[in-house]
Amino acid sequence: MTQRAYNFAAGPAALPESVLEQAQREMMALPGPKASILEISHRSPTFKEIIESAEKNIRTLLGISDDYAVLFLQGGGRLLFSMIPMNLLTKEQPSADYILTGTWGKAAIKEAKKLGSMKVAWDGADDKYTYTPADSDLELNPNAAFAHYTCNETIEGVQFPTEPQTGQVPLVCDASSDFMHKPLSVDRYGMIYACAQKNMGPAGVSIVVVRKDLLERSSDELGSYLNLKLHADEGSLMNTAPTFAIYVVRLVTDWLLNDIGGLEKMYAINQRKAKMLYEVLDQSGGFYEGHARQDSRSLMNVSFRLPSEELTTAFLKQSEAADLTSLAGHRSVGGVRASIYNAVPVAGVEALRDFMIDFRDKHAN
Amino acid sequence: MTQRAYNFAAGPAALPESVLEQAQREMMALPGPKASILEISHRSPTFKEIIESAEKNIRTLLGISDDYAVLFLQGGGRLLFSMIPMNLLTKEQPSADYILTGTWGKAAIKEAKKLGSMKVAWDGADDKYTYTPADSDLELNPNAAFAHYTCNETIEGVQFPTEPQTGQVPLVCDASSDFMHKPLSVDRYGMIYACAQKNMGPAGVSIVVVRKDLLERSSDELGSYLNLKLHADEGSLMNTAPTFAIYVVRLVTDWLLNDIGGLEKMYAINQRKAKMLYEVLDQSGGFYEGHARQDSRSLMNVSFRLPSEELTTAFLKQSEAADLTSLAGHRSVGGVRASIYNAVPVAGVEALRDFMIDFRDKHAN
Repeated sequence: MTQRAYNFAAGPAALPESVLEQAQREMMALPGPKASILEISHRSPTFKEIIESAEKNIRTLLGISDDYAVLFLQGGGRLLFSMIPMNLLTKEQPSADYILTGTWGKAAIKEAKKLGSMKVAWDGADDKYTYTPADSDLELNPNAAFAHYTCNETIEGVQFPTEPQTGQVPLVCDASSDFMHKPLSVDRYGMIYACAQKNMGPAGVSIVVVRKDLLERSSDELGSYLNLKLHADEGSLMNTAPTFAIYVVRLVTDWLLNDIGGLEKMYAINQRKAKMLYEVLDQSGGFYEGHARQDSRSLMNVSFRLPSEELTTAFLKQSEAADLTSLAGHRSVGGVRASIYNAVPVAGVEALRDFMIDFRDKHAN
Repeated sequence: MTQRAYNFAAGPAALPESVLEQAQREMMALPGPKASILEISHRSPTFKEIIESAEKNIRTLLGISDDYAVLFLQGGGRLLFSMIPMNLLTKEQPSADYILTGTWGKAAIKEAKKLGSMKVAWDGADDKYTYTPADSDLELNPNAAFAHYTCNETIEGVQFPTEPQTGQVPLVCDASSDFMHKPLSVDRYGMIYACAQKNMGPAGVSIVVVRKDLLERSSDELGSYLNLKLHADEGSLMNTAPTFAIYVVRLVTDWLLNDIGGLEKMYAINQRKAKMLYEVLDQSGGFYEGHARQDSRSLMNVSFRLPSEELTTAFLKQSEAADLTSLAGHRSVGGVRASIYNAVPVAGVEALRDFMIDFRDKHAN
């Protein structure tokens, strides 16, 4: 068998090894249909059980009430950036607020601007997107159709410690890169959405948790695939769902429930992993410089810089050789980024920690 | 290992066994990145090689020139039903023609109606969608932005023997259920699109072949994911592509090229398979009644009825028990449907043929 490295990719990202093993075992045929998960109808009883179990797992893990629909959609965050204003802006409430803490928030705003009035309620540009705002700094419009924020900026490694307070305005959260990393009070949100390829599964499916009353805003004039209410009415089976991706989400949520033991336990592990790496940064005498301010540090994406481009290149080359892979920062910002999502094992983070200490000892003045 | 049945599902549908075996072998880790295909970046060199090979295979199999872009998109035919008029209608040419030969054409029209003026150039409703029109029967608008048709209606089992002639009006073809079943003259088309889950791979990716000059029609005001030109400019990597689905498309197209030996050979096999089943229909003395007229019979979906509901139920139950699976007609029409896509082996069709003859001998008066 081909050897596996410790994978710190930002997404698509590491999956639990036991999930991959089960997908491998079952690839040729599932027992009931005697066909591969890749070959069975999205309307078959076997797949119905899979998608219902995936939804049930997500509901159990986050304690989601029946006031919310859970959807599985294609097109990633990018399509949702358009669909959200398409569905949630109304004639009575034609404007939305966006809180801007990094690259993905900017991408969401770009799409919203094409579709109606939107206002940036806070913009972290002046400090190069290194922290999240206090509630008192937000310039919120009390008549906004919704208020959008990105709870974890994958590229900058900036994470909200807790959700912003937006009063009666429904809070819409792009949780693509930290969904399910800790427990959430879903009832504080109008909508939470996340592409699967960070914490939940492979690329090709997004998970949307949306308060059902908000779905009444969806206009019949929308294209069917763009209509969130239709997706909810059809149980995410308006058309052929991305069956394999949803199957893997089911396996990952099984793992979270049964192997990890729920999101409180997952959160404790994630805190422990992040602490290991941030301690190396803090104790490096400035050799490793973190991007985010301490109070806004991400538990998922540890973004940092080395003193020079030469050292960065050497770091990436040597870590790769030590089977610590995909550590390059996003092409837009450079540096190093260790993505330590749920499925990255503690042993992998320990190995990276040791590598970082060793590398610093060899190269710091 | 779990036994595999002969799978006649309409989609998601049978895949070549060698493709599933390779996906299984490589599931835990690809040699280069030492990570699963599910875990690697869509921008990694490994995935770049995969998506480029998939595109190159498709170009080779169909002889596609550089005048056309080949795209890999999410959202299935349903999202494309909206995207096509969004991108191809213009101020100068605000109307499109739709040729209606069955259920999927109807679904495409439903979305087009929301987006502008459209005209039904032919409608097979009067004969219950049992045949395709002659060119002389089409009421085409010479100023239409495009003319849309469905080359194979999956549910009715009605297939165009050759593409309709639309003169200077760009022909747009929903080829979801017969793409790559035979060679095509791509230069007769403005655009051909197909979801993968019939002949090309798993659910979760669609393949679009589009003439590059048509992409100039896409407006900057469109949401980014809805803009075909942006997808072409970004090589289908505007955002995270459905990496695993594209990986399987690459394996399937490798199989078509190397194991089958190209589309001429695939076509000969498909003709042989379809002939076996249609002969049973024609020689059944009316016991099996095909839906489509002889000149419009699909090589991919053989739709037929039995003399009674009781016999249909018995047929489906006994075929399932004989490991000939997923033969029920679409829930909207009932009856029996044998989908015999590229990957359904000749041996499977032979087994079904024998079962059908035997069943008829036992139950016909």
